[in-house]
Amino acid sequence: MPESLPERLLLGPGPSNAAPEVRAALAQPLIGHLDPAFLEVLDRVQRNLATLFRCRNGLTIPLSATGSAGMEACLVNLLEPGDVALIGVAGVFGSRMAEVARRCGARTVCVEVEMGQTIPPERMADAIRAERPSLVALVHAETSTGVAQPIAEVAREARSAGALMLADCVTSLSGMDVRLDDWGVDAAYSGTQKCLGCPPGLSPLALGPRAIERLNKRSRPVQSWYLDLGLIGDYFGQSRVYHHTAPVSMIFALDCALQRVLDEGLEARFERHREAHLRLVDGLEELGFEMLVPEGRRLPMLNTVVPPVPDEAALRRLLLDRHDIEVGGGLGSLAGRVWRIGLMGENARPEIVDRLLAALRQLL
Amino acid sequence: MPESLPERLLLGPGPSNAAPEVRAALAQPLIGHLDPAFLEVLDRVQRNLATLFRCRNGLTIPLSATGSAGMEACLVNLLEPGDVALIGVAGVFGSRMAEVARRCGARTVCVEVEMGQTIPPERMADAIRAERPSLVALVHAETSTGVAQPIAEVAREARSAGALMLADCVTSLSGMDVRLDDWGVDAAYSGTQKCLGCPPGLSPLALGPRAIERLNKRSRPVQSWYLDLGLIGDYFGQSRVYHHTAPVSMIFALDCALQRVLDEGLEARFERHREAHLRLVDGLEELGFEMLVPEGRRLPMLNTVVPPVPDEAALRRLLLDRHDIEVGGGLGSLAGRVWRIGLMGENARPEIVDRLLAALRQLL
Repeated sequence: MPESLPERLLLGPGPSNAAPEVRAALAQPLIGHLDPAFLEVLDRVQRNLATLFRCRNGLTIPLSATGSAGMEACLVNLLEPGDVALIGVAGVFGSRMAEVARRCGARTVCVEVEMGQTIPPERMADAIRAERPSLVALVHAETSTGVAQPIAEVAREARSAGALMLADCVTSLSGMDVRLDDWGVDAAYSGTQKCLGCPPGLSPLALGPRAIERLNKRSRPVQSWYLDLGLIGDYFGQSRVYHHTAPVSMIFALDCALQRVLDEGLEARFERHREAHLRLVDGLEELGFEMLVPEGRRLPMLNTVVPPVPDEAALRRLLLDRHDIEVGGGLGSLAGRVWRIGLMGENARPEIVDRLLAALRQLL
Repeated sequence: MPESLPERLLLGPGPSNAAPEVRAALAQPLIGHLDPAFLEVLDRVQRNLATLFRCRNGLTIPLSATGSAGMEACLVNLLEPGDVALIGVAGVFGSRMAEVARRCGARTVCVEVEMGQTIPPERMADAIRAERPSLVALVHAETSTGVAQPIAEVAREARSAGALMLADCVTSLSGMDVRLDDWGVDAAYSGTQKCLGCPPGLSPLALGPRAIERLNKRSRPVQSWYLDLGLIGDYFGQSRVYHHTAPVSMIFALDCALQRVLDEGLEARFERHREAHLRLVDGLEELGFEMLVPEGRRLPMLNTVVPPVPDEAALRRLLLDRHDIEVGGGLGSLAGRVWRIGLMGENARPEIVDRLLAALRQLL
């Protein structure tokens, strides 16, 4: 061990803290990525991801890279040059989707709202009628603003127009309801380091039957070999054919994290995130913080707040240096104006909220 | 912990076993990817990678995905559609490079030899003169055949023709000599799970000044956003601008693994790999195994051998089930004919070789 690192409470936009059990799973002795014992772990991880995404009869995999690679994997596999992609942009991660779609050679149309706003489903519906996209994409929990976006409503419109629906569930998965089959979402991706309470490094990804069909009917190879879900599916499917060396240790950790989620129960976990969020909002308002997002549109796991001080960065640094608590700064047009306080996975607990509030009380 | 996994000795083509210290580093409590304490770790990792690659004045980073993504990152950043890429193909990983280059839209020319052969530098030189490529690429240690390829000689030819030279060092880095600056190699990538003795999941990657210049002069955006080394360089460079969430735990492990490599010393480590290899060859020949590759062209860390039995897969399975030792099967046209025995990182030791030989003696 090189030196001792500080023990931080991670209340930013991710990573969140991982449970000791998850870290212990990470440190298990390695086994080979084609070892029958490892393939059992992988089977379980894939099954449990299907439960989390509520995606039956699809392909659910832990992609061997972070959440942003999950975004690119979905877009690069489901789009071909010249396709029309319609992207809802309500923050940094919506913009990123649009940028990735453009790099896939798609004609990319954005329905954009100011950061902090919800995209009205009617505007998406109008654009779907006008543009006839082959793919509609939206970020479920926009991590740059703390606003929930109307995935189910937009998915309904996309479906009825024959377009595929792609949802970014990086911040939402296992912290709030995500239902691919029920909502008609054809593809989704997440990250391990948010509400799953696992270190960053993998992107849980789900393709439903319509997305798989689109993939199989492509007219040209996917421009990325590493993210080619046809090739990757041969390893993560029945045949278990080598594509690249799976990140064995990270998959051990994800396996443990998923079992913890399912042991707790999804509904109980969502409720725990909601309760921690409400406790945080009460406490922060008492201290003079303002919530950026109006009630009813707030994400439980990611709270954007305006601190009651002129220099947000200085206070954030004090919180880190004196109390070992990390919160996030603003992104994009919100940089320097807001904090992003994450209560994700292990950290969505009253005692964690109270620790943050006590530290802030001392500093203010 | 879900259940107890078998303790395997990993003598396949990777992953190799990680030292307990490396696994302990992996399990350290998480800190944020923009935390000053983490950026110190990252600085050290990047510095130590520069030492390992022997690449001064370049960009050295731990790419947030496995070795195959390092391959794609180099090709996708250094090639533009219509460019000519000349690839030496002497096995599965050379073929993979060619496939990735084609997906980048490059006109891809291959100089091919049979699996098990060395590519003659003269043939590469002739092709360089005939095709005027902008990029020449070669696998240093071809993991599918166990043959060392003449990187330094080919790099000299590439340089003198004004082409960039790219080397796949997935299996070679820290197990045999790799010298980017001295050899005139402009870009290289590796994997963590081979001679570095770290779990799979990251791709150490190095760009020299000429590669960085090529990147800065591109006429169009890199087709991959996740692997865009311009954007990634903003996080791994001075400005530390957020691009994606770095896989913190894996970088802790790599940090520890790199320090172990440098504590041992590169020359001593290479010598340890050579000695273990010679001991293995002696022992295997005594048992009736035949080496696929003639002396002088063999890789020390990856030994392709023909087992003295009709059913190689059955013997391989017995080795795993009865002795908890994994060796690799053949890839491509060598499947079913050879074993690939890896002596990488922690496993390049006489006592490990002896354990394998004893197990084989019992089974044969």
